[in-house]
Amino acid sequence: MYEVEVKVPADLEAVRDRLETLEATRLGSVVQADTYYNAPHRDFAETDEALRVRSERPDDSTEKTRVTYKGPLVDEETKTREEFETGIEDAETTDAILTSLGFEPTATVRKDRERFSLEEYTVTLDTVDGVGDYVEVETEVADESDLEGAREGAYDVLERLGLDPDDQIRTSYLGLLLET
Amino acid sequence: MYEVEVKVPADLEAVRDRLETLEATRLGSVVQADTYYNAPHRDFAETDEALRVRSERPDDSTEKTRVTYKGPLVDEETKTREEFETGIEDAETTDAILTSLGFEPTATVRKDRERFSLEEYTVTLDTVDGVGDYVEVETEVADESDLEGAREGAYDVLERLGLDPDDQIRTSYLGLLLET
Repeated sequence: MYEVEVKVPADLEAVRDRLETLEATRLGSVVQADTYYNAPHRDFAETDEALRVRSERPDDSTEKTRVTYKGPLVDEETKTREEFETGIEDAETTDAILTSLGFEPTATVRKDRERFSLEEYTVTLDTVDGVGDYVEVETEVADESDLEGAREGAYDVLERLGLDPDDQIRTSYLGLLLET
Repeated sequence: MYEVEVKVPADLEAVRDRLETLEATRLGSVVQADTYYNAPHRDFAETDEALRVRSERPDDSTEKTRVTYKGPLVDEETKTREEFETGIEDAETTDAILTSLGFEPTATVRKDRERFSLEEYTVTLDTVDGVGDYVEVETEVADESDLEGAREGAYDVLERLGLDPDDQIRTSYLGLLLET
């Protein structure tokens, strides 16, 4: 499965109005804390990989934790990568296992996310602690040959939300946080 | 938390009879498949660590998967180690994450386990595919200073089960499997 994801800085109130006009479905909101780890045997900043433990508290449920591995970029344009993710019971024990294996936590990104569904795309309004407000438009495709069409569709969604695809930020929130 | 664990080869039918006489509580039985991984940056055979993904199907429930890190031995005598373990949603995805990070599966140990509780000890009757039949007696202590007493208690349990603490096998099932 390949993920297509485009992100631009945005005035979230204005985007919320456009989503209402477009009759997007509000999926809910969550508070996320993402801790990123670096490996003992290779530098993920160089290999362009990521290992993340995400604790997520939805507005209507209890906290859930997931671990995610993101491989190097397949497509520079849309930040497409191979991704493996599974739920885990306990973030603290996972941290103990990873640090025992020599992995080191490098940074924690905290954000409020509000998600909407618009056709086959998910639109996420993010308020990132210490970084700013952003809108992400994403979808998944099974085949690499469908990436180009999915990317064009994501740009189209941005335009309908009053946003400019040329404002696209390719730096991750982790990268933006580390730049501050 | 420190784990005290002693293991001896045994005639499981005879031990089952003794457990009944001692009025031990039968806790249930499970089928376990343990996959062990080696690290890309150090050889766990040399550092005496272990990283294990265990899929367990209890006789009365659905399959559960857990990931466990075991640190080097703290006490040679009883195989005491520091251990971190947490539940995970999906074994296959965990395998994909670990192999992407450069970890390699080295072996899979499959066994049927029947567990009993006898005072503060857990007695496990193991039938290990390709290895043989064993009894494990284990308990946990919070403090390292309680290890000696817990170990003596484990030997005492073995004797009451008609087993000889001198038959203790310090090699793991993984080790025994790799020796075959």
